[in-house]
Amino acid sequence: MADPQFRPRALLDRFNIEVISTTDPATSDLGHHAKLRADGLGERVLPTFRPDRLAYLDRPTWRADVAELAKVSGIDTTTYDGFLDALRSRRAAFVEAGARATDHGHLLADTTPMEVSAARELYSRILGGAEASETEVAAFAAHMLYQMAAMSCEDGLVMQIHPGVLRDHNSAIWKTYGSDKGYDIPVQTEFTRALRPMLDRFGTDPRFRVILFTVDETSYSRELAPIAATYPSVRLGAPWWFLDSPEGMRRFREFAVETAGFYNTSGFVDDTRAYASIPARHDLFRRVDAGYLARLVLEHRLSMDEAVETAVDLTYNLPKESYPRP
Amino acid sequence: MADPQFRPRALLDRFNIEVISTTDPATSDLGHHAKLRADGLGERVLPTFRPDRLAYLDRPTWRADVAELAKVSGIDTTTYDGFLDALRSRRAAFVEAGARATDHGHLLADTTPMEVSAARELYSRILGGAEASETEVAAFAAHMLYQMAAMSCEDGLVMQIHPGVLRDHNSAIWKTYGSDKGYDIPVQTEFTRALRPMLDRFGTDPRFRVILFTVDETSYSRELAPIAATYPSVRLGAPWWFLDSPEGMRRFREFAVETAGFYNTSGFVDDTRAYASIPARHDLFRRVDAGYLARLVLEHRLSMDEAVETAVDLTYNLPKESYPRP
Amino acid sequence: MADPQFRPRALLDRFNIEVISTTDPATSDLGHHAKLRADGLGERVLPTFRPDRLAYLDRPTWRADVAELAKVSGIDTTTYDGFLDALRSRRAAFVEAGARATDHGHLLADTTPMEVSAARELYSRILGGAEASETEVAAFAAHMLYQMAAMSCEDGLVMQIHPGVLRDHNSAIWKTYGSDKGYDIPVQTEFTRALRPMLDRFGTDPRFRVILFTVDETSYSRELAPIAATYPSVRLGAPWWFLDSPEGMRRFREFAVETAGFYNTSGFVDDTRAYASIPARHDLFRRVDAGYLARLVLEHRLSMDEAVETAVDLTYNLPKESYPRP
Repeated sequence: MADPQFRPRALLDRFNIEVISTTDPATSDLGHHAKLRADGLGERVLPTFRPDRLAYLDRPTWRADVAELAKVSGIDTTTYDGFLDALRSRRAAFVEAGARATDHGHLLADTTPMEVSAARELYSRILGGAEASETEVAAFAAHMLYQMAAMSCEDGLVMQIHPGVLRDHNSAIWKTYGSDKGYDIPVQTEFTRALRPMLDRFGTDPRFRVILFTVDETSYSRELAPIAATYPSVRLGAPWWFLDSPEGMRRFREFAVETAGFYNTSGFVDDTRAYASIPARHDLFRRVDAGYLARLVLEHRLSMDEAVETAVDLTYNLPKESYPRP
Repeated sequence: MADPQFRPRALLDRFNIEVISTTDPATSDLGHHAKLRADGLGERVLPTFRPDRLAYLDRPTWRADVAELAKVSGIDTTTYDGFLDALRSRRAAFVEAGARATDHGHLLADTTPMEVSAARELYSRILGGAEASETEVAAFAAHMLYQMAAMSCEDGLVMQIHPGVLRDHNSAIWKTYGSDKGYDIPVQTEFTRALRPMLDRFGTDPRFRVILFTVDETSYSRELAPIAATYPSVRLGAPWWFLDSPEGMRRFREFAVETAGFYNTSGFVDDTRAYASIPARHDLFRRVDAGYLARLVLEHRLSMDEAVETAVDLTYNLPKESYPRP
Repeated sequence: MADPQFRPRALLDRFNIEVISTTDPATSDLGHHAKLRADGLGERVLPTFRPDRLAYLDRPTWRADVAELAKVSGIDTTTYDGFLDALRSRRAAFVEAGARATDHGHLLADTTPMEVSAARELYSRILGGAEASETEVAAFAAHMLYQMAAMSCEDGLVMQIHPGVLRDHNSAIWKTYGSDKGYDIPVQTEFTRALRPMLDRFGTDPRFRVILFTVDETSYSRELAPIAATYPSVRLGAPWWFLDSPEGMRRFREFAVETAGFYNTSGFVDDTRAYASIPARHDLFRRVDAGYLARLVLEHRLSMDEAVETAVDLTYNLPKESYPRP
């Protein structure tokens, strides 16, 4: 690690990484990104807007985060309307810093909006110190997904939804070591009804783009591929987390492509905390995709020319095109 | 299209179609089928009895359809008992016109019957102008599936159930263009508990035959294959809609056959609005089945003789035998 | 059958069976096992503790079984605490008779414990002749799974959970012929939330071992493999019942191994009532596993040496090591 050629910026070149994105809380002042930009990396290392902690009323830090949001945005967040304005303002700051997307790690895919009056009342009540019920927490989280979709139509940030993981499954591990220690287990995830309010309102809006990820592969052929085939705004993200593996990647193509098509998928968008694993992961995905395309050629379902063109698009063009500059 | 060899009846010969079925509302007077019979096509183009619009109390046309049913059957439908009699009478007219089957496109597979008194009360109340609650709509639809099964035991029509599609997912498309415009998305479908009332009552009745279709392939190995293996009245239909594709067809065999057996499946029963696609679709299904059978031969799980016999049966004998003349 | 070489004990040698286990109700006096031990087969034919009939308050025999439990254990079971003591005592008798495991065939995987006071009250009320509601039946069954996990930590019996089968689907068959006549149909099974109370309390306890079986293969990659990969106490059992077939076994490896690893699975543990089928079943499983391992070698994902070592472990070492002597 002392060797300069293993420093993170050197590896950007060595790994041939054109663009990499961090995920940053909505309350981030994006100071690190400002420094990167000053160093000439502003087009290469981009932030991603992640407002989850503000969307879940039961997070222990929720009130502190709401206060932090006011501070970083300079907008009063003591009302629900101010809260939305502050989020809008931070999204604009992210866009200004080069962000292409937002990211939403919700338990459920529900996007049902609340009545504005109910959202205002709930927001004020919880900010005032009351405890939100489980139902209220879920309703507000769903409402926030809907609001984020609405804002994506305004500012052009691509929306990414990663639902269906029950976090901190083991309370002793969580109490001792904190979150993200491996005790996160997927649950069955419903998309067809859950996404309907959002897609009914924004799904055919040419300004909207949403990329759906899942760790419940049973939804590929039943829900996600039909949704992606139908709504022009929807793309399917690459196999994620537990499914980001040779068999998982192969099944993704087998289950999703016949209905969704290759071109309603995002191509391989890596999602890892292990920086040094990036080249190997892309190499694996390309091999699995090449294997799948080769089978289609052997079975006379694609011509060789079509397969080669598709391989290049899945590897390079589609990921790039899936996340346009706002 | 001006060329006589491309007229629909000419294509019947060119495509080598022995039998084709339309789906017709329960209220149809079957006039087109009478004309076909007069023209000598009465054995070749058959009607199928589809009562869905009468089974869903919330369809905007429900009361008009009930009135139409009275008109076409000549039976008073102002009471629930008259309604059932009129349905029975139309089924007899369909049988007379050559029908082999009924078809039911319900959201849920639920077949729980209502108490007769409750069904009478609900029917009269809604016919009188009241609006049915969501629960009542679902309960009556389930009740009607049970009633249709009962009538199938009486008149010998094969029952086909196609559950699990949420129709008109996008309200703007539906308001502008109407139904069946591509915005139909599958939902997870439960069969084991849902079909129990019907199968408990009619499932071992030698007069009963039901063919189950799904767009939720997770139910193949878990629910549908065990049910088809157990109940002599049940057959599994061919892969349907989004699953009517090379990978989908192959998975159907891999997931269902080990438990259900080939001979508890219907063979390839095509379901398309694209008349000209029929030969290609049958060709594809035969190729996929042949590929699956070839693998079983290579793995010494079937002999070549058995595979060839099975291939012929899946292609021709099983579909024909699955829909006996009532 | 008259030929002595076809007698059950002769077949133990001919089939090269090192260890076989019966499942025995908690109320068994284990007399047959005492006789086997006296005949020198005490290390080879082992009992397994199966308390299901005592865990389901709605079984017609529940009160009789509770009385039988008192008789065989010599412990008063008229109170809930005595009931638990009697179960503990029978488990000790099973351990003494060579048992390695308990077996639990619940409808749901739920392991939520009741408050002790509520469990006492419910137990006394039902024993006194009241009828348990469906909710109470389910709550007590879940509570008993939790209690059995607690006792496994104390006495070292490996816990086996086989959930998700709706028994006696057809009431006429059940009334005429009784249970276990083929009319048992799987239902969708949730594990992540259901197992959480048990795993949260005992999942990282080094004294605890639980082996999970399913007939709902949709849970392999979504829930079971992540759980087995995370909790050191958990192993995945071999494909069970409808999934105990060539395609089912292959899919088990494809869906589960990338996340769970081979060494968090139990290896092939056969579960059959057909004694004479045992050699063929093991042979099949070995062939399917060998085929899967061969593919990994061909794809350069395992070396040949690793594959051979894994094959031996899956066949012999893992099943043996999965069920240690308490």
